[in-house]
Amino acid sequence: MAFSAKPYCSTTTKPPAPTTHLSPSPSLSARARRSAHGLSAAAGKSTPSIIRLRAFAQRIRASQQQQRRRPEYVPNRIDDPNYVRIFDTTLRDGEQSPGATMTSAEKLVVARQLARLGVDVIEAGFPASSPDDLDAVRSIAIEVGNPPEGEGVHVPVICGLSRCNRRDIDAAWEAVRHARRPRIHTFIATSEIHMQHKLRKTPEQVVAIAKEMVAYARSLGCPDVEFSPEDAGRSNREFLYHILEEVIKAGATTLNIPDTVGYTLPYEFGKLIADIKANTPGIENAIISTHCQNDLGLATANTLAGARAGARQLEVTINGIGERAGNASLEEVVMAIKCRGELLDGLYTGIHSQHITLTSKMVQEHSGLHVQPHKAIVGANAFAHESGIHQDGMLKYKGTYEIISPDDIGLTRANEFGIVLGKLSGRHAVRSKLVEIGYEISDKEFEDFFKRYKEVAEKKKRVTDEDIEALLSDEIFQPKVIWSLADVQATCGTLGLSTATVKLIAPDGEEKIACSVGTGPVDAAYRAVDQIIQIPTVLREYGMTSVTEGIDAIATTRVVVTGDVTNNSKHALTGHSFNRSFSGSGAAMDIVVSSVRAYLSALNKMCSFAGAAKANSEVPESASVQSTE
Amino acid sequence: MAFSAKPYCSTTTKPPAPTTHLSPSPSLSARARRSAHGLSAAAGKSTPSIIRLRAFAQRIRASQQQQRRRPEYVPNRIDDPNYVRIFDTTLRDGEQSPGATMTSAEKLVVARQLARLGVDVIEAGFPASSPDDLDAVRSIAIEVGNPPEGEGVHVPVICGLSRCNRRDIDAAWEAVRHARRPRIHTFIATSEIHMQHKLRKTPEQVVAIAKEMVAYARSLGCPDVEFSPEDAGRSNREFLYHILEEVIKAGATTLNIPDTVGYTLPYEFGKLIADIKANTPGIENAIISTHCQNDLGLATANTLAGARAGARQLEVTINGIGERAGNASLEEVVMAIKCRGELLDGLYTGIHSQHITLTSKMVQEHSGLHVQPHKAIVGANAFAHESGIHQDGMLKYKGTYEIISPDDIGLTRANEFGIVLGKLSGRHAVRSKLVEIGYEISDKEFEDFFKRYKEVAEKKKRVTDEDIEALLSDEIFQPKVIWSLADVQATCGTLGLSTATVKLIAPDGEEKIACSVGTGPVDAAYRAVDQIIQIPTVLREYGMTSVTEGIDAIATTRVVVTGDVTNNSKHALTGHSFNRSFSGSGAAMDIVVSSVRAYLSALNKMCSFAGAAKANSEVPESASVQSTE
Repeated sequence: MAFSAKPYCSTTTKPPAPTTHLSPSPSLSARARRSAHGLSAAAGKSTPSIIRLRAFAQRIRASQQQQRRRPEYVPNRIDDPNYVRIFDTTLRDGEQSPGATMTSAEKLVVARQLARLGVDVIEAGFPASSPDDLDAVRSIAIEVGNPPEGEGVHVPVICGLSRCNRRDIDAAWEAVRHARRPRIHTFIATSEIHMQHKLRKTPEQVVAIAKEMVAYARSLGCPDVEFSPEDAGRSNREFLYHILEEVIKAGATTLNIPDTVGYTLPYEFGKLIADIKANTPGIENAIISTHCQNDLGLATANTLAGARAGARQLEVTINGIGERAGNASLEEVVMAIKCRGELLDGLYTGIHSQHITLTSKMVQEHSGLHVQPHKAIVGANAFAHESGIHQDGMLKYKGTYEIISPDDIGLTRANEFGIVLGKLSGRHAVRSKLVEIGYEISDKEFEDFFKRYKEVAEKKKRVTDEDIEALLSDEIFQPKVIWSLADVQATCGTLGLSTATVKLIAPDGEEKIACSVGTGPVDAAYRAVDQIIQIPTVLREYGMTSVTEGIDAIATTRVVVTGDVTNNSKHALTGHSFNRSFSGSGAAMDIVVSSVRAYLSALNKMCSFAGAAKANSEVPESASVQSTE
Repeated sequence: MAFSAKPYCSTTTKPPAPTTHLSPSPSLSARARRSAHGLSAAAGKSTPSIIRLRAFAQRIRASQQQQRRRPEYVPNRIDDPNYVRIFDTTLRDGEQSPGATMTSAEKLVVARQLARLGVDVIEAGFPASSPDDLDAVRSIAIEVGNPPEGEGVHVPVICGLSRCNRRDIDAAWEAVRHARRPRIHTFIATSEIHMQHKLRKTPEQVVAIAKEMVAYARSLGCPDVEFSPEDAGRSNREFLYHILEEVIKAGATTLNIPDTVGYTLPYEFGKLIADIKANTPGIENAIISTHCQNDLGLATANTLAGARAGARQLEVTINGIGERAGNASLEEVVMAIKCRGELLDGLYTGIHSQHITLTSKMVQEHSGLHVQPHKAIVGANAFAHESGIHQDGMLKYKGTYEIISPDDIGLTRANEFGIVLGKLSGRHAVRSKLVEIGYEISDKEFEDFFKRYKEVAEKKKRVTDEDIEALLSDEIFQPKVIWSLADVQATCGTLGLSTATVKLIAPDGEEKIACSVGTGPVDAAYRAVDQIIQIPTVLREYGMTSVTEGIDAIATTRVVVTGDVTNNSKHALTGHSFNRSFSGSGAAMDIVVSSVRAYLSALNKMCSFAGAAKANSEVPESASVQSTE
């Protein structure tokens, strides 16, 4: 799979055969060569051009719409050489982002949506990292990993991460074994810099650990084991081929090649994958995978270069979230393959791209990581021109600027399509709408939600999908409620002396009231909450967005807080302790109310995390990488 | 400049000679080949490895710190083949983003900062689009384009955009001619799809217009003319070579190749640039430039592929802002070249990267387009791990994860370095701080600012750089004040009946008071403002962020509004009319006060835009692309 440049010609259906470099002209299609000496003959007459343009647009659209059949799942083999698996790690790598911690209920709803989107593998978490994480992965394996049987029903692989030690692998297996297609993903560092400074092991020791742990995972009954040589980009090539060869022999089915520091260039990363494919003995018995960090903004390009060089599993996250600058974005990688598959040797994925917009919004909502307006594919401006209106009606000919149609990614607006809700909408209509936008909740949860819905619908003419998601997130996906809000009242303004009074309901049901002055109404209200709850916290971030247009919109507030040392956790990759941060969100039409809800939500998440950490000790504890027994 | 894959070896100082594709092993360095048969000998002993690792880290750092001398500016030639010009179009392409409209004062302060950052060319605007834009470009040309003379002082080129018609070019020249290094950038579409549907011209007509207009721009006395064939990526190759040959003959000094729809793949875009370089007669007399849109998230990779293939000017924007999914990010492109220059054939730029963070923040503040937390290089999380702390103190060995040091991009925190301001800081200290963070303002402006500063410092222990930027933006870079806020008072809470009273000062100095109820305090206050001002508007977006940590932080509110049809403008590329949207921002410690300030700021911007459009008619009006005389 070489990096020879291929000719680009918009009117060629089939990609022409690769040509040599820089030969001045053989790379042009026959038509282009003809037109070189008769420009006007080719482009001056309008009729044939229009036909060509239409055909071009149709071909692009047709290649986009074509949803080829997903080959049957076999762990270490794909029967169609053009099929690329999409491995989503939003719930594991994405959730490691500062403040992105999700509750188990939130993870489950995101996993359901990922299954609808059609991802091949859901990496659901890192079970050894905390009891909470193990529970979340297990419930995803049980529910999302076991869809009802039937013709053509997609069964996603449910995967759990583990370091190369028995305790981690035991925890991962305990969590994923309930899925119809379970997978354990284990990793160890293979670059000199990491082996020496992080692991303090010799290369032989590292190879021995990797082999032993892959074999151990298989011995538990897991038919599907993925192995990652961490920091592969900076590992010695020959050593890499050697360790990969050994883990394949030990039973690894997928070999994931991470660009851990995110600083390789596309042709360089493509070369790495091509080299591994060419030089690793036994590589034909495993799938090569990419995992690219985005530190230089090149994750999508590196991932595509990897696919072009022979990788057939791509690890990505929704919205590109993840630590530091995040990972390759699912939506960018998938849409590039969908739009430009013919230039990528005919590659295709099993993703139903019309679910992309909804999935993106859901992950923004639950991770609290909002994408920038100019984020490719899913940003608010991605399909808008300066006018703020959709591009569709604006251009003389749609094809002049637009390549991806808003429909392709499911970008429809509540006020244009589907059921529009209002004050008079009944339970049935509201519940149908929830299903339509991807949420299935229990009857009890629905009743709680419907009460909040009615309050909003009383005040607002039109209740949009965005409003509903904000309310759902506020009402249903909250952590265990420890303190709840009864009432808040505030006065504020330029005259100063902002004052707020807060009434909370304590865990024992007792009502507690406090009032405080502050520099503004939110400051005053938060001080009043602090007086009641009395847990030392630092507010790290505070932000608010209006979820829809208009001054009567619902405002969603999001806060991130850190507490004291009782919330210490160990970091998956570094093994270091850190003080966790917790995000909370609240939605209301009154910004002071939504701010207080968000603060309480974050404090409740923090309290329940601290409580769980203390109460639960029989689950496998995070073990250091050094102990392999 | 072929796309042969080069071997990656972290311990090789000089890039080895290109090799053929996929030859299994000659691409490895001698050391790697040796170690293939003696892995433990190479990596098992710690002493030689440590030395190698240190040498590796030092080399990366050294290559980053190396600031080579910028070659003297000659429009159509660069004396050092490895030097790449950085063309920043934040103020033109970036400002076209929905709601990103900046005032002239804001544009000037950003242009000053771009000059400090060391960009080679500042595209300051599209002078024919509005009288405001012409004024802004002219004042940037006069001030930023004429730095004090002296040894080693960098003189940025000031560039204005124009379509291929005389009126546009006249307006551009009128604006840029005051700069010591003026440039006119003119463009016309060259793809079949655009020529036929947008221009309704034959290819010969398009070539004739392009030649004539480039020659016209030169005839005005402009020594430096850039030409862009719009939608080059979908243009017929032979036609592209032909039109470029003709404009070079007519006097074009730079040929900019845009990927207008942002959907080419890196190797494909690199091939386009390589083909142009190889096949365009006379290309050695001009500079090839790239301009990549980010619709598939590939803009940075495409730009680097273009540079590798021979482009020596790269068009970028700060934070990657721009229409739809934006453009290639200056910070990503520059840092990739800085960190990986040795794999990019030794390329380097003249950018002083330690100004990147400040420039990024300034552009976020003034464009209102905030980057996502996981934005590469400049996102809030780019240098943070889950712990929320800087990476530095956390890892056993810094090199394990970090490639770019926070210092390289000027990421220092107000509470760690520099002058820390508080309640007792005097005028001198505050003014020094302003200069330190990049703002030079007049004495009058400083006095207004200082008053606001004191109000905040009274309430807040520590005033950070972020607080100061928020206040500056609120106080100094506002549009012409038409309506101003005297007082606001609000009550709100879960008990409902939110009420706000607003006192505004009218253009004639008269005080007007109104009160209103609403669904929350902001809704109530905005309704009260509407009662007084009585301009029909729609609130498109509303968002708020706290600029620093802690509950007593300053909150910055940003709103985007659209008004009625009196704000119609013509779009640069499409020629279509659109109803402009206006953003406003406000900063205060009270969120209701900051919300009202933001709303008034947007309304004032809208009123003054409507006023200017009516009052001013002697400036060149936006002409359609069709009129070339």
